[in-house]
Amino acid sequence: MIYSFNNDYSEGAHPRILQALMECNLEQNDGYGMDRHTAHAAALIRQEIRMEDVDIHMISGGTQTNTLAIRAALRPHQAVICADTGHINVHETGAIEAIGHKVIGVRVPDGKLTPAAVQSALREHSTEHMVQPRMVYISNSTEVGTQYQKAELEALSSFCKQQGLYLFLDGARLGAALTSRDNDLTLADIARLTDLFYIGGTKNGALLAEALIIRHPDIRPDFRFLIKQHGAMLAKGWIMGIQFEELFQNHLFYDLASHANEMAGKLRRGIADCGYSFLWPSSTNQLFPVLPNHVLEKLSQDFLFSTQMIVDEEHTCIRLVTSWATKQTGVDAFLEALTRLGASRQ
Amino acid sequence: MIYSFNNDYSEGAHPRILQALMECNLEQNDGYGMDRHTAHAAALIRQEIRMEDVDIHMISGGTQTNTLAIRAALRPHQAVICADTGHINVHETGAIEAIGHKVIGVRVPDGKLTPAAVQSALREHSTEHMVQPRMVYISNSTEVGTQYQKAELEALSSFCKQQGLYLFLDGARLGAALTSRDNDLTLADIARLTDLFYIGGTKNGALLAEALIIRHPDIRPDFRFLIKQHGAMLAKGWIMGIQFEELFQNHLFYDLASHANEMAGKLRRGIADCGYSFLWPSSTNQLFPVLPNHVLEKLSQDFLFSTQMIVDEEHTCIRLVTSWATKQTGVDAFLEALTRLGASRQ
Amino acid sequence: MIYSFNNDYSEGAHPRILQALMECNLEQNDGYGMDRHTAHAAALIRQEIRMEDVDIHMISGGTQTNTLAIRAALRPHQAVICADTGHINVHETGAIEAIGHKVIGVRVPDGKLTPAAVQSALREHSTEHMVQPRMVYISNSTEVGTQYQKAELEALSSFCKQQGLYLFLDGARLGAALTSRDNDLTLADIARLTDLFYIGGTKNGALLAEALIIRHPDIRPDFRFLIKQHGAMLAKGWIMGIQFEELFQNHLFYDLASHANEMAGKLRRGIADCGYSFLWPSSTNQLFPVLPNHVLEKLSQDFLFSTQMIVDEEHTCIRLVTSWATKQTGVDAFLEALTRLGASRQ
Amino acid sequence: MIYSFNNDYSEGAHPRILQALMECNLEQNDGYGMDRHTAHAAALIRQEIRMEDVDIHMISGGTQTNTLAIRAALRPHQAVICADTGHINVHETGAIEAIGHKVIGVRVPDGKLTPAAVQSALREHSTEHMVQPRMVYISNSTEVGTQYQKAELEALSSFCKQQGLYLFLDGARLGAALTSRDNDLTLADIARLTDLFYIGGTKNGALLAEALIIRHPDIRPDFRFLIKQHGAMLAKGWIMGIQFEELFQNHLFYDLASHANEMAGKLRRGIADCGYSFLWPSSTNQLFPVLPNHVLEKLSQDFLFSTQMIVDEEHTCIRLVTSWATKQTGVDAFLEALTRLGASRQ
Repeated sequence: MIYSFNNDYSEGAHPRILQALMECNLEQNDGYGMDRHTAHAAALIRQEIRMEDVDIHMISGGTQTNTLAIRAALRPHQAVICADTGHINVHETGAIEAIGHKVIGVRVPDGKLTPAAVQSALREHSTEHMVQPRMVYISNSTEVGTQYQKAELEALSSFCKQQGLYLFLDGARLGAALTSRDNDLTLADIARLTDLFYIGGTKNGALLAEALIIRHPDIRPDFRFLIKQHGAMLAKGWIMGIQFEELFQNHLFYDLASHANEMAGKLRRGIADCGYSFLWPSSTNQLFPVLPNHVLEKLSQDFLFSTQMIVDEEHTCIRLVTSWATKQTGVDAFLEALTRLGASRQ
Repeated sequence: MIYSFNNDYSEGAHPRILQALMECNLEQNDGYGMDRHTAHAAALIRQEIRMEDVDIHMISGGTQTNTLAIRAALRPHQAVICADTGHINVHETGAIEAIGHKVIGVRVPDGKLTPAAVQSALREHSTEHMVQPRMVYISNSTEVGTQYQKAELEALSSFCKQQGLYLFLDGARLGAALTSRDNDLTLADIARLTDLFYIGGTKNGALLAEALIIRHPDIRPDFRFLIKQHGAMLAKGWIMGIQFEELFQNHLFYDLASHANEMAGKLRRGIADCGYSFLWPSSTNQLFPVLPNHVLEKLSQDFLFSTQMIVDEEHTCIRLVTSWATKQTGVDAFLEALTRLGASRQ
Repeated sequence: MIYSFNNDYSEGAHPRILQALMECNLEQNDGYGMDRHTAHAAALIRQEIRMEDVDIHMISGGTQTNTLAIRAALRPHQAVICADTGHINVHETGAIEAIGHKVIGVRVPDGKLTPAAVQSALREHSTEHMVQPRMVYISNSTEVGTQYQKAELEALSSFCKQQGLYLFLDGARLGAALTSRDNDLTLADIARLTDLFYIGGTKNGALLAEALIIRHPDIRPDFRFLIKQHGAMLAKGWIMGIQFEELFQNHLFYDLASHANEMAGKLRRGIADCGYSFLWPSSTNQLFPVLPNHVLEKLSQDFLFSTQMIVDEEHTCIRLVTSWATKQTGVDAFLEALTRLGASRQ
Repeated sequence: MIYSFNNDYSEGAHPRILQALMECNLEQNDGYGMDRHTAHAAALIRQEIRMEDVDIHMISGGTQTNTLAIRAALRPHQAVICADTGHINVHETGAIEAIGHKVIGVRVPDGKLTPAAVQSALREHSTEHMVQPRMVYISNSTEVGTQYQKAELEALSSFCKQQGLYLFLDGARLGAALTSRDNDLTLADIARLTDLFYIGGTKNGALLAEALIIRHPDIRPDFRFLIKQHGAMLAKGWIMGIQFEELFQNHLFYDLASHANEMAGKLRRGIADCGYSFLWPSSTNQLFPVLPNHVLEKLSQDFLFSTQMIVDEEHTCIRLVTSWATKQTGVDAFLEALTRLGASRQ
């Protein structure tokens, strides 16, 4: 039987979430997110981030959330700066350009932006013949598994403030970042240090749902018009409300992410024990080991994973992703297979 | 207790659909709609429309589906013709204009387009200083509860073909149309007479999902790029596949719509028995009775419904919507209340 | 020889304008409108409107100016209200929709908007499922030759202010309006009563150039970025500056428009003397007489004009346009021909 | 007196062009480019490129022409590949993104694309989660003064054909390329090897006008709708027709560009004689010498030029541009000043 480490959205929803959907199924709820579950979920999040004066919207996917956040914040001539590996720069089929904005991808080694990296983009955009940078987009954890330290986020946040740039954090995998062993940030820190950010549900045990939290007053007005216009306002919006109610009651959000990290940790240690290295360091739920092609050929008979990059003629970097649903037996099987195939001879 | 006739998306999903989601929950599925449930659902739909050579995509809402269908079909200078009451013309916060296309709303009495109505729009758009009409958008059932007869759809279809216009049918409430007592169309007819159309799941017992069927070869290429770009490609796409599997196994799609129509039929007869009239004739699940304001004031203490139009100083047209989940007891209570409040004195 | 009343842009530029272009031809000027001629032209306009605190931009055509003005003013979900005959609603190939905004055309009898007409559009756009009206677009003179009285513009202006709507005046033919015998407005009034407006050069003796005056502070920031992005920033921007220098030195702007009106007045009186009527009353440079088809057939052998509307089986409304370049001999010839063809027998 | 080498659009138009505008000034011409001058200019260009079956449009500026060409060619999810220095990538305020398309900038050393460079961009865009490259944009001469050899263009053209990519050549400075001493291409070659390209007038002696030649049949339909929609259809379109009539009668186009190159050649040799080097090799009308800051400080008292790049703490690369109007005396003065300031001590 094949076991998949392809991504963190291969299974449905955590059973407690499905159960809650079941229990509320025959309630009559107001449509379009104006229901009491969505309101309650927002209240739970406000409590968690210790901030009352924010707008919170439930949106059904990451690309949509990124698109709407950027659309609400930028005027037509303005652009968003991100790491060259940023999801909006690579993996959204040009969603941001499709709504009219240039994405300025800055080359960085580890998926993370720094004030210096942002500064370099600012320097290159100095006249009215060029787009005007107005927002910085980061992801935490990043697309290459790395994560921001508190000091790093504080530095970036204060640089953005000083330069008149909105700071937007894509939290599709925020759970994995916040529960990683290397993390020193809280949700309240994130809320305080960004102008808007979202908490990913889809990749952390929900069927679908991201919670966008908007703090900056200039980005908040009429946001629901934009949601509706983009076709992103679910008729049965309470489906998302219910899921976030569950995620933020009894720590489920953190527990699910912790499980994913724990499974990834086992994989990481096992792979390292076999003598293999990683393209990027990661203590979250995405790993990027470099493995010999002949090993990968064998592994791919029993496991699913994606190719990240060809390293040299004999080695390839793959991506392994764990999730709330990853089974210990799957991880064990992978490591056994790897061990059986022989350790690195380097 | 308040009972709602506000819309057909006030409750969750039919229990069989929830059950199926539950049973598949821990399967590992491919993401983004590349899974076997979505493929199977598409196969069931192909069987139902008796047509193999079509592309089928699952999309999470009506506005999104309309937007993507029109985006795929039109070049930048082209426009879509619809009834003035058309959903894309009124209730989508300018979604179609937001992707660059003018919506040409033609005034019609009953929510339905005819060749003559379309012709009038063509006549007014004759030079390169005007937008170029290229698509006709209709809905069945319409936004005012009416529906197309086979002869009407055939006439419109052949007119569109002759004029080089794509014909697109919004089937958000297609179930209600096809199961109405006045219907003489089948899904296979719809597929044959249009270039693309969608089958609504969200308003007929699904949590969320519309199935877009594209027959015209010019609209099919690269459609998944557009879905992804618009943020409409659900990571856990099989959620929609599973729902359409259930809807098109064992006639559930038709059974649910029939129930909605049956409940609406009871309401319609009861309201007519009280001597009240309707702004538009409807044998589907939306009714538009004209009621005295003093009666409405009382009714609104126990029932939810929306206001459609102010008719005169003393009368208002409201909208009552039934669904797969509407309870006989709710209908009875409404009619009892109406009767108690006294019949029309006209 | 054929004489054309097709429009007011059939000839080049007034000789004084060409002369000025000639004289400055070998100067080295800064590009993109940052030159001293453009600055001087703006100073002359500021003087004329008796207002210092405005931004003034030279743009090469009407559609472009409308597009940029609206793009700068509206957020993505917002819409502009105009008369159904408004240029942006009919004759710009969907330019406004192409940048994402719905144009709400309100049916009016005479090409002019009133507070009541605007109010009717506001009433129909009341929820977040609809576009949000945010701007009112008017033209003076209008597309059907009519013009605003001071009291009308004051009423509309104060209504817009009260409703939070920007008021934008398209002045492609503002010269004709301001020099008409029925006019009681000045350029200074226009500036005071609108949030932004433009003064048309192209239809009043310039080769190409419209001067957009923006008074409202929210529409002014970064406007030059939008001009550049739209490809509307001429490398040799001083060409437009020089033209407006000429137009606003020694009253040329008014003199040219007066000539056009005078020629139109002769035509109007001559046509009326023959017993023919007009579809809209006009004391500006566009006339809309209703003439018998057999008369038009003969006239079209010697004169060019455009068809406005088929009135009945035997009559057609045509459009006759005069300009700064219209020759008295052309007008005389037209009236002689009309007289020769016989007066109306009505 | 200050002399400017800032750009090639600092002066008006060549006197013969102005003269022609003068002579036709009182003709009555059809509007919007439907006049006989535009038709004649197109005929002259067809003759020059030895190709009949093309569409030719006159457009008033480079950014506009690029925008329209790309808009006509791409569907919403498609992207254009260009050199990182490409005008559309850097200097058009995001015009291409504003109409929805990602610009994929490929890092190259000399402003020119090769099949290998394009291939690298193709390799990185392989799935439907990424934009789909569909066009290659090049400029000749490039933004850094370099130019394509016939063999290079042939290789690129055949690679593009094989990969299903449109090849679009921005010829804002095509005159300078075709008349450079290193050139081995003709206009007919350019037409044959690209799918569409434009011949720049504005930077080669016209007031304003670029001539876009579209050969590929899929890009041609309805192009005038796009021009109008973008506000790029000049009412007095014959202004552009007349200018191209002059440019392509009696070799004026080539003569003007030759003069610019000749002036640049003198500057280049003089600068080299002083011992200074250039950042890019150029035999066209843009030079990029690297000069000591203390020299530049002095030069800037008498000459205008722009800064291209800071090379090190003591050296800066500037851009010097010559044109049809550059005076021998200006060039001499610059070289004298440079010599007086002392040769390089390297």
